[in-house]
Amino acid sequence: MDYLLLAKKYGTPLYAYDFDYIENQYNKLKKEFNARKSLIAYAVKANSNLSVLKHIAAQGAGFDCVSIGEIKRALMAGAQNYKIIYSGVGKSDEEIEQALNLDILMLNLESEEEMKRVESIAEKLGKTARISVRVNPNVDPKTHPYISTGLSENKFGVSIDKARKMYLYAHKSEFLDPVGIHFHIGSQLTDLSPVVEASNIVSKLLRELKALEIDIKFFDVGGGVGIRYDQENDPDLYAYAQGILSALKGMDVTIICEPGRFLVGNCGVFITKVLYEKTNDAKPESRKRFVIVDGAMNDLIRPSLYEAYHEIDALKEGESELCDVVGPVCESGDFLGKNISLPELSSGDILVVKSAGAYGFSMSSNYNSRPRAAEIEVKGGKDRLIRKRENFEDLIQNEKEFI
Amino acid sequence: MDYLLLAKKYGTPLYAYDFDYIENQYNKLKKEFNARKSLIAYAVKANSNLSVLKHIAAQGAGFDCVSIGEIKRALMAGAQNYKIIYSGVGKSDEEIEQALNLDILMLNLESEEEMKRVESIAEKLGKTARISVRVNPNVDPKTHPYISTGLSENKFGVSIDKARKMYLYAHKSEFLDPVGIHFHIGSQLTDLSPVVEASNIVSKLLRELKALEIDIKFFDVGGGVGIRYDQENDPDLYAYAQGILSALKGMDVTIICEPGRFLVGNCGVFITKVLYEKTNDAKPESRKRFVIVDGAMNDLIRPSLYEAYHEIDALKEGESELCDVVGPVCESGDFLGKNISLPELSSGDILVVKSAGAYGFSMSSNYNSRPRAAEIEVKGGKDRLIRKRENFEDLIQNEKEFI
Repeated sequence: MDYLLLAKKYGTPLYAYDFDYIENQYNKLKKEFNARKSLIAYAVKANSNLSVLKHIAAQGAGFDCVSIGEIKRALMAGAQNYKIIYSGVGKSDEEIEQALNLDILMLNLESEEEMKRVESIAEKLGKTARISVRVNPNVDPKTHPYISTGLSENKFGVSIDKARKMYLYAHKSEFLDPVGIHFHIGSQLTDLSPVVEASNIVSKLLRELKALEIDIKFFDVGGGVGIRYDQENDPDLYAYAQGILSALKGMDVTIICEPGRFLVGNCGVFITKVLYEKTNDAKPESRKRFVIVDGAMNDLIRPSLYEAYHEIDALKEGESELCDVVGPVCESGDFLGKNISLPELSSGDILVVKSAGAYGFSMSSNYNSRPRAAEIEVKGGKDRLIRKRENFEDLIQNEKEFI
Repeated sequence: MDYLLLAKKYGTPLYAYDFDYIENQYNKLKKEFNARKSLIAYAVKANSNLSVLKHIAAQGAGFDCVSIGEIKRALMAGAQNYKIIYSGVGKSDEEIEQALNLDILMLNLESEEEMKRVESIAEKLGKTARISVRVNPNVDPKTHPYISTGLSENKFGVSIDKARKMYLYAHKSEFLDPVGIHFHIGSQLTDLSPVVEASNIVSKLLRELKALEIDIKFFDVGGGVGIRYDQENDPDLYAYAQGILSALKGMDVTIICEPGRFLVGNCGVFITKVLYEKTNDAKPESRKRFVIVDGAMNDLIRPSLYEAYHEIDALKEGESELCDVVGPVCESGDFLGKNISLPELSSGDILVVKSAGAYGFSMSSNYNSRPRAAEIEVKGGKDRLIRKRENFEDLIQNEKEFI
């Protein structure tokens, strides 16, 4: 991508996504499961732009959604309803009802209480709800605590014992059809062996259920395939897929895999413009260099929220020195990078924040009354706007009639 | 407020603000500075709803803004331009130009580099820019590092020495008029003695400038007045005001104070509905109770981002037990409260998250494709919608034409 040209053409701050990269990542993962029936269901929350979803749907992918809003987005982008999974601990009654009416592939249940609610809503609608149960295999994924979800101290899923009871209940219910089994132990795993470990644990339950003639058709291993932000190892996809396949030996199930970050994380960059440099140079020992840019924590909250590292590239040569790259938001927590090595910069220079395709725009806000950035795609060398930059009118449209 | 009624009338999740409380807080602070000319300039970023701003403007308040969006909001809500201050480390050229054209009270400068940019833009427009310089007095406010701003390791302000040079430069410049001096050392201070300490430091510079016949008219002590979220002490406003007044003895300046949280923090609550309870009860020692509600980190990010505590009230009696109050967002970081003592709850029960008037809605996002909550005011016992709940159309309006 010609970042300077894109910055000039679309303005900054700007999210830019390489759609060919997404396609490559999709094919890389899909290929590993060639030996079996598989469905790659993209985790919409990572990047829910409609054009991104449309591009991913065109590959034949399914979608892992966590709200009715995400389901509507997926359908609008051309997803097939029978490839949509509805996950999440907090589905409201209205959302469950809409999902059943849309006849999606299945609802992923996070608790017994939720199962009962889904059952009664299905009964009310005169439908049979296809469901899976999210099993919590109590495996430590060794990632950031905020994105670790497979331990029993997390809010997600149920224990193996409770899952077994739920399947027996659902099997007998007129309004529930248990078609899947699911787990998801955490995000951004560069060592995928915990997923294989979890597959082994959960496949034992699957075998039991099959023996009880509960016809589970989908084995959903969740997401979590990590990407390289810094010096991380690329995950070993071959070992990952082989481990899962071997856990399922002799069983006729479709494998579902729910990558989010893996498909879009490194497709995207966040392009921002330098406003100026400043140095607090009162005393040499506390000297500190700041590069102040027009992008901020409201645009990309990962550095603040998860202490996440993003590589930042200055697109120019010169002797480099450490600095903090900070935005205009009035908080010390507003930074895009700390102790980043960059050459001397001046007003108008462009910085490229890498690996910003996942959990970038999708988590962005209007904090400090800042309009959200524009988003563009680059496909086959051609760039195109896929979301307009917000303006002041957008910010006040739901308020102005009340003053 | 009758929270149950409000939840029923407007739906959940919902932000509700007590406008009479805001007025009381304003008067409490204003009164402390009665002996002097003073301007209470509300920090818009805390809660930028247009109706909130209108109510605060009606008290005679000014506004501390950190973006052109906030300035436009303030003006739209009826603020007088000569009571608007424009602060922030990252003003773009366009924003500076617009602010000068709007003839606001002053631009608060954060660096020498910014001063030069403001000067050249003022020159281009044939205007004289009224400015103040944000001095970094290097006082430790002893608050959360993300909202601590008065140390030299922060991105904010300039040293006393640099400020002196900037004033001398601005005094000579045809296009700059130094009318104010400013500091802001951090947010949510319940012990305000660091502000008094900073006032003493900065007032020395003020005396020097006055001696040099640089006619500084405004002494801006920033914000930072803390509120009670939990067991904090209420800040001693009398000692605070007296400390500042005494630092300014014998000098004819208007005191500017920039409260945000102090005015609106405890005026507001976040009302959310229980979806269901769940317990991960695999082993008694790792037993954990979760209350799953329809509000989430996208609505109120303070617990996740700052590990902030908010009191949560269940509006019902019964034996209480510890639980985590969590939302529907698919992250373990999605919680509104941890280890909160609450009675047994069931689907449809209402929880009230207290102290949510500041940095609640203003930091909210559409993460997980969740529409943002509605906001209402209660004034003189009457409630009224002040921002419509977002819907799916709002979420996609800047994208849909591109798919």
